Amino acid sequence: MSRAGEPIACKAAVAFAPREPLRIVDVVVAPPQAGEVRIKIAYNALCHTDAYTLGGHDSEGKFPCILGHEAAGTVESVGEGVTSCKAGDRVIPCYQAYCADIAKEPCAHCVHPKSNLCQAVRAYTGAGVMKNDGKPRFTLASDGSEIFHFMGTSTFSEYTVVHEVAVAQVGNDEAPLDKVCLLGCGVSTGWGAVHNTARVEEGSSVAVFGLGAVGLACVEAAVEAGATRIIAVDTNDEKEAVAREFGATDFVNPTKFGDKNSQTVIAEMTDGGVDYSFECVGNVNVMRSALECCRKGWGTSVIVGVAAAGTEISTRPFQLVTGRTWKGTAFGGYKSRIAVPKLVEKYMGGNTKLDRYITHRMKFDQINEAFELLHEGKCLRCVLSFD
Amino acid sequence: MSRAGEPIACKAAVAFAPREPLRIVDVVVAPPQAGEVRIKIAYNALCHTDAYTLGGHDSEGKFPCILGHEAAGTVESVGEGVTSCKAGDRVIPCYQAYCADIAKEPCAHCVHPKSNLCQAVRAYTGAGVMKNDGKPRFTLASDGSEIFHFMGTSTFSEYTVVHEVAVAQVGNDEAPLDKVCLLGCGVSTGWGAVHNTARVEEGSSVAVFGLGAVGLACVEAAVEAGATRIIAVDTNDEKEAVAREFGATDFVNPTKFGDKNSQTVIAEMTDGGVDYSFECVGNVNVMRSALECCRKGWGTSVIVGVAAAGTEISTRPFQLVTGRTWKGTAFGGYKSRIAVPKLVEKYMGGNTKLDRYITHRMKFDQINEAFELLHEGKCLRCVLSFD
Repeated sequence: MSRAGEPIACKAAVAFAPREPLRIVDVVVAPPQAGEVRIKIAYNALCHTDAYTLGGHDSEGKFPCILGHEAAGTVESVGEGVTSCKAGDRVIPCYQAYCADIAKEPCAHCVHPKSNLCQAVRAYTGAGVMKNDGKPRFTLASDGSEIFHFMGTSTFSEYTVVHEVAVAQVGNDEAPLDKVCLLGCGVSTGWGAVHNTARVEEGSSVAVFGLGAVGLACVEAAVEAGATRIIAVDTNDEKEAVAREFGATDFVNPTKFGDKNSQTVIAEMTDGGVDYSFECVGNVNVMRSALECCRKGWGTSVIVGVAAAGTEISTRPFQLVTGRTWKGTAFGGYKSRIAVPKLVEKYMGGNTKLDRYITHRMKFDQINEAFELLHEGKCLRCVLSFD
Repeated sequence: MSRAGEPIACKAAVAFAPREPLRIVDVVVAPPQAGEVRIKIAYNALCHTDAYTLGGHDSEGKFPCILGHEAAGTVESVGEGVTSCKAGDRVIPCYQAYCADIAKEPCAHCVHPKSNLCQAVRAYTGAGVMKNDGKPRFTLASDGSEIFHFMGTSTFSEYTVVHEVAVAQVGNDEAPLDKVCLLGCGVSTGWGAVHNTARVEEGSSVAVFGLGAVGLACVEAAVEAGATRIIAVDTNDEKEAVAREFGATDFVNPTKFGDKNSQTVIAEMTDGGVDYSFECVGNVNVMRSALECCRKGWGTSVIVGVAAAGTEISTRPFQLVTGRTWKGTAFGGYKSRIAVPKLVEKYMGGNTKLDRYITHRMKFDQINEAFELLHEGKCLRCVLSFD
């Protein structure tokens, strides 16, 4: 009973306005046009970026929209000219696209060894629409009004339409979608920040600020890279246990430093500072601490968190002139569609803690409760199922 | 007629207070103590960092002091235990020391492949004194009062005392000291910023902000690295000719951009931004422009200039999260004492424009006139001779 070529009516969690709970309503998902793929979403994991946009902090955020960007599902149908996936393929939608093997004229980023910031559809996903006609594929069932896409993924819907360049194959038929959905954002971002962006080496010292899923993925990857000192930093003491479980050698809580700031405390702990630091909070003051706790001469700090629109990072230029490097990462530097199947294989090889990030499971219609858990810091990842 | 072990009375240009002209007076230079070297300076080149400290912008600056850090001369005598040089050796004092081959316990920076920020004597040179007894070797002949050292070099004196770890051999006996004195700071810094810190590759695009000697050295090195687009940026139109002579393919003057800022203009010129940029002005606003004119995805900006104490750099974290890297450099990342003889050889091989940086020559007692030239932007390097 294929519905290819037909609109599909289904449930979606719609963000009608910033700072309002999502509302689960009936939406109509148009068939995929040329270069597009319609996916039946099986599992969603909640990520702070969804909460960030819902909170009204994202200058690009357009409402009403369907959020969600860390998910897995099955291709329902494909539009004209789509060759890299077909109906029935198990896939992970990628908010960071990759076009080099699909586009007739690949973008400069996909052919460049140092960048994963595909530009093929960026202007459209940023505007909440599809490239083919500049419109969204979602309408409200009740009145036919348009609903914008988000990050080119909009996975908080039973069905979604994404650009072909944003569809990664899971690859391994045995891989459980309710686990590998996490590879669509947070965990991959943390792993890649360590391995691709910072390139942490054997014997390094590392500081990780913020111990949500992304920060813990940094800790996990730092262990894998052979870091011998891993200082986990969080204002919530309850994070210490899980940080140590992931491999952190030290835990510090900046609210207990008294007159000292984090950079001073960490420099004292490490005889001058760490080799690498990762900011996984999204706070510009923490970003400064993360840079300045790095060691003079060769310390590298990577911004992983997303800061509120309008905020700026600052430091004395002397911090950089004396040998520190300030970088950032998006999706951990992975070229998404070619990296995701490899990350799935890595998980299937049994050498990751992917299962451990999933602290909660709920039904999709409990999505607002799941967001509450995320805000309270009690949850690493809550996986929502549609079935 | 060796005066080893004896104090030497000689002329020096003393900075008695910030923002006052230097005064050439008689000073007494004590003999070198253990681990120290007394050098008879032959030539000085003026660098903006001298002017910066004299201008009162350096929070570390202590007065009265003897400035000067870009020079060459001959070892007059050495203190106890000094083995890496002897009386008569032609040398270049290095404000950035290197201790790995001298110190019993080399500092962490000298043994680390990524750093050139030797810490062996840093605490003392920053305080204007020598490590052995925490005192300066200079006194005023008139009243015996102490005069502080500057950057561990204090080359604006016929004789100076420096730490052994700060003495680079010229090596090649044919090398003219009145030329290779420039390798003590500015030119080496620009060359190294391109080759060591940024590692500019063949085919790259580059923007250089500020076309003094350091900026032109960046242009020269960018040509050598194979950069195919080199945009020279200066507010002084008179710099265009020399920038093009050094190999710049474009010249732009930010005072003529109207409503646009440098980053917008350069992004437009380069279809998105340059691969590498270098800030050689020492202005935090220019540092921001230099970062933001770099290309999303992989652009790297290197801070080379020294900003006034208390000023800070800022940008939106999004600039880094979208793939830009912000770095800085000191002495171009060269491990000084082992790099300088190689740079001398490079010059002697005829493959550099070192001669071209010397636009003026004066006698040492014209030093205040020479500073005026530097301030007016009419001079790349003025070499002062004592003879």
